[in-house]
Amino acid sequence: MTNRRDFIKKTLLTGAAAFAAPSFLHSENEMPAIASLANESNMKKENDNNPLIIPKNNGLRITGTFLDEISHDIPHQNWGVKEWDRDFQYMKNIGIDTVILIRSGYRKFITYPSKYLLNKGCYMPSMDLVDLFLQLAEKYKMKFYFGLYDSGKYWDTGDLTWEIEDNKYVIDEVWEQYGTKYKSFGGWYISGEISRKTKGAIGAFQALGKQCKDVSGGLPTFISPWIDGKKAVMGTGNLTKEDAVSVQEHEREWNEIFDAIHNVVDACAFQDGHIDYDELDAFFSVNKKLADKYGMKCWTNAESFDRDMPIRFLPIKFDKLRMKLEAAKRAGYDKAITFEFSHFMSPQSAYLQAGHLYDRYKEYFDIK
Amino acid sequence: MTNRRDFIKKTLLTGAAAFAAPSFLHSENEMPAIASLANESNMKKENDNNPLIIPKNNGLRITGTFLDEISHDIPHQNWGVKEWDRDFQYMKNIGIDTVILIRSGYRKFITYPSKYLLNKGCYMPSMDLVDLFLQLAEKYKMKFYFGLYDSGKYWDTGDLTWEIEDNKYVIDEVWEQYGTKYKSFGGWYISGEISRKTKGAIGAFQALGKQCKDVSGGLPTFISPWIDGKKAVMGTGNLTKEDAVSVQEHEREWNEIFDAIHNVVDACAFQDGHIDYDELDAFFSVNKKLADKYGMKCWTNAESFDRDMPIRFLPIKFDKLRMKLEAAKRAGYDKAITFEFSHFMSPQSAYLQAGHLYDRYKEYFDIK
Amino acid sequence: MTNRRDFIKKTLLTGAAAFAAPSFLHSENEMPAIASLANESNMKKENDNNPLIIPKNNGLRITGTFLDEISHDIPHQNWGVKEWDRDFQYMKNIGIDTVILIRSGYRKFITYPSKYLLNKGCYMPSMDLVDLFLQLAEKYKMKFYFGLYDSGKYWDTGDLTWEIEDNKYVIDEVWEQYGTKYKSFGGWYISGEISRKTKGAIGAFQALGKQCKDVSGGLPTFISPWIDGKKAVMGTGNLTKEDAVSVQEHEREWNEIFDAIHNVVDACAFQDGHIDYDELDAFFSVNKKLADKYGMKCWTNAESFDRDMPIRFLPIKFDKLRMKLEAAKRAGYDKAITFEFSHFMSPQSAYLQAGHLYDRYKEYFDIK
Repeated sequence: MTNRRDFIKKTLLTGAAAFAAPSFLHSENEMPAIASLANESNMKKENDNNPLIIPKNNGLRITGTFLDEISHDIPHQNWGVKEWDRDFQYMKNIGIDTVILIRSGYRKFITYPSKYLLNKGCYMPSMDLVDLFLQLAEKYKMKFYFGLYDSGKYWDTGDLTWEIEDNKYVIDEVWEQYGTKYKSFGGWYISGEISRKTKGAIGAFQALGKQCKDVSGGLPTFISPWIDGKKAVMGTGNLTKEDAVSVQEHEREWNEIFDAIHNVVDACAFQDGHIDYDELDAFFSVNKKLADKYGMKCWTNAESFDRDMPIRFLPIKFDKLRMKLEAAKRAGYDKAITFEFSHFMSPQSAYLQAGHLYDRYKEYFDIK
Repeated sequence: MTNRRDFIKKTLLTGAAAFAAPSFLHSENEMPAIASLANESNMKKENDNNPLIIPKNNGLRITGTFLDEISHDIPHQNWGVKEWDRDFQYMKNIGIDTVILIRSGYRKFITYPSKYLLNKGCYMPSMDLVDLFLQLAEKYKMKFYFGLYDSGKYWDTGDLTWEIEDNKYVIDEVWEQYGTKYKSFGGWYISGEISRKTKGAIGAFQALGKQCKDVSGGLPTFISPWIDGKKAVMGTGNLTKEDAVSVQEHEREWNEIFDAIHNVVDACAFQDGHIDYDELDAFFSVNKKLADKYGMKCWTNAESFDRDMPIRFLPIKFDKLRMKLEAAKRAGYDKAITFEFSHFMSPQSAYLQAGHLYDRYKEYFDIK
Repeated sequence: MTNRRDFIKKTLLTGAAAFAAPSFLHSENEMPAIASLANESNMKKENDNNPLIIPKNNGLRITGTFLDEISHDIPHQNWGVKEWDRDFQYMKNIGIDTVILIRSGYRKFITYPSKYLLNKGCYMPSMDLVDLFLQLAEKYKMKFYFGLYDSGKYWDTGDLTWEIEDNKYVIDEVWEQYGTKYKSFGGWYISGEISRKTKGAIGAFQALGKQCKDVSGGLPTFISPWIDGKKAVMGTGNLTKEDAVSVQEHEREWNEIFDAIHNVVDACAFQDGHIDYDELDAFFSVNKKLADKYGMKCWTNAESFDRDMPIRFLPIKFDKLRMKLEAAKRAGYDKAITFEFSHFMSPQSAYLQAGHLYDRYKEYFDIK
């Protein structure tokens, strides 16, 4: 008992300043119990205080986002032109300068009227989203990255052969149809979400990266693989995994992959959601070291959805996102992108928690 | 490489006109990067353009919807009279003329104060939803179909005996209490959701259909079974199913069922969500042929929720709904109803994606 | 057939008055079919009617709520000071006078900057929620109960040893840091969610309850265990459970537990969501009898989320909540609290069904 009491007393004395909580509420604001909710001026004053007990603006800002409108596992928001335009404004407002189509098609659903893919049995989309996104990127002075086609056959078979074959056509087609027309066409996202064990991944990245660069005069390419970590388990069962990859294994294997692909892949944005928050520094420092060694850019894919909840998926708790961006800054990362703004961070998202995440993000980074 | 390039060049030349994407944004609308979101006039002008690259108004319009306020597996919205009234207005606005109570009770929860069911241990509801829906149907000049009681025992045992027994009382009770009073009482929905293998289905449909017609002077009846297709798998596991019924099996089995029930069942609205989008034409043409053969009406139950997502269930992606309605039109179907408007298509749904689906639907069908 | 007809006729005659449904809509309100939605005066008039066919105000009112901002299994809403202040106003408006932090930390995530827990490897939170909630409780004249720390080790191992050890420090720390400062600090919630079989539960409740009382001059303590009933099954599989505890077993076991802990635990708020609606009276009367026997207060934890839906979890259907509160009143319970207001009953919840539940609740209890 003495030890415990001593511990508490000591820490309270020495740490008092550091932990002095802010006064959230002005005492003059004391309101009658059932106050009018319309008293917004009161609210505004409270908001002027800084309620945070941590240093602000201490993480890497998000400057890119995926666009997920092909609806693989995130339900569609059914937005039209007006909503997309407004969303690009919301993005711009927090400093996003890069938008990345996560995939141009998934199985039979596609985002643009691809002659090649329609011929193969894909369904005609009602809007040309690639065109819309390129126009909006021009309007808001952003760079658009085109995400390759995902036939789904890799997910079914573990084999990337089909992705390479289909994308040979898609890359040429898209460049001729859009790349030569829009100055916002800024690069390529090689969309195979692989981990270290994916069969044929190196060959696929080499082939696809080379073709993207060849056809477009060397526009940048990037990948966004997942770290085979504790939470890399699909489905609704266990959230953790016994045989999580160790940092050492991760380094050894990605050293081999980067060695093989760095000539045609400019950046790697590992997904940050499969490892625990106190493992971030260990993995991030390895990632940065490897990227530096091979002259690649080191990005982070800061996931803005919560992997720890029974509903798969809703917006992440702000502190989780913050910790990941702080770790990326500590590791000296080059850029943070997110999967993704429109469902999980946008003020007009169908998930209202997203708008509050937007507000918390702006509060933390002092964005007006 | 030559082949691929040739293919692209050729298709781009020959198909250029067909795939010319619209200009979504007026060039004079170029705004400073962080533009005021209040600039709605700008938004409106953009919206005047037609962003669709497909023929508009090319599907069967939805003119009926289920009402799902007994909360079997769709969470309750807790609406009061005001919200229901407004929802009927939203329905009317897109041309809905038929509302169908999906079931009047499910296990111990019931939608109206049924003496019979209260006596059997069901719980007293706080509102009489049958009465409310009938009043609203009168107000908005719609027809109301009454969905029979579902004791849940069929789901537990696969046996329809209990449904027949309970509904013998429910049908009489409801007709005397509401049918003789409201001119909006327009028909009956025999709510057993069966597939081809359901034991006793034919006998149940015959008995229930006959009683409904007898008591009400021959008001129309309909059923809405599911096609035992690829996606007819419950739960969160696999989304597809090896032994999906073939079109031939489907035709053989439903021919037998229709033959037995067509005297007392006026329409069949197969659920359209268990088969793949490129199977729609094959199944729909069989359904229409069978309906014609037996003098029944051929409806489609165009599901407006998405069966392909981990969250079960949120509103469907518009293009999926559109493809199903286009297939129904091609097959010459008589009517499209949906499960269901209030959660998945309504501007006041708790799922905000639903309001956007409403807007996309109106845009496609040119509804002001 | 005769029997059935007779039954219907008889009940319709004798019960006509009881079941006379209200006229929801004024006939003079008949509107053109596609009426302007802006016609709110029309809506308001309808709302003045009482649409309920049951006695109003016949349940125990909810006067307390948990605060769930540590995000164990309910996704975070990312609220700031402004939203929390507004939520306390909404709570106050329906008579809530007690707020209970469900846990001060869960595994490595904590709600206040605890020196002790930070030292053990927990993550620094961006806001001090304990301080914020205490300030808001003072502002709105509520009592705040502090929920103990949950290391997660009990969930992993079934052993409560770690909870006792960690909370020895947490209780002292929190009392010195907040309890001595805020008059709104009103009690303690011993947060282990146990059932009858939890190993070491009695010893843990004794040790923790005693320390809470000792340090705070005897402030009240309470627990909120679950009844090991039909629905006490986690995960997405079966919703019911064969070996549900019987009322007799429940009484025998909790008699033993209350006997051991009643000196240091003032109230017990059983969760009401694991038993069926027609079992409520049986279990509630036992709970009240046991509480009376040991001089404890008998509270109910009226869950405001729906346990019966595939999406885990969204707001409950109002009638379910109503039936539980009516049973609590019949049993003579002392107080009703809920898990929890901010996600499942608040007008500003990300789940819009919650705002409608709030309206239904106010309508039923005649709260303006």
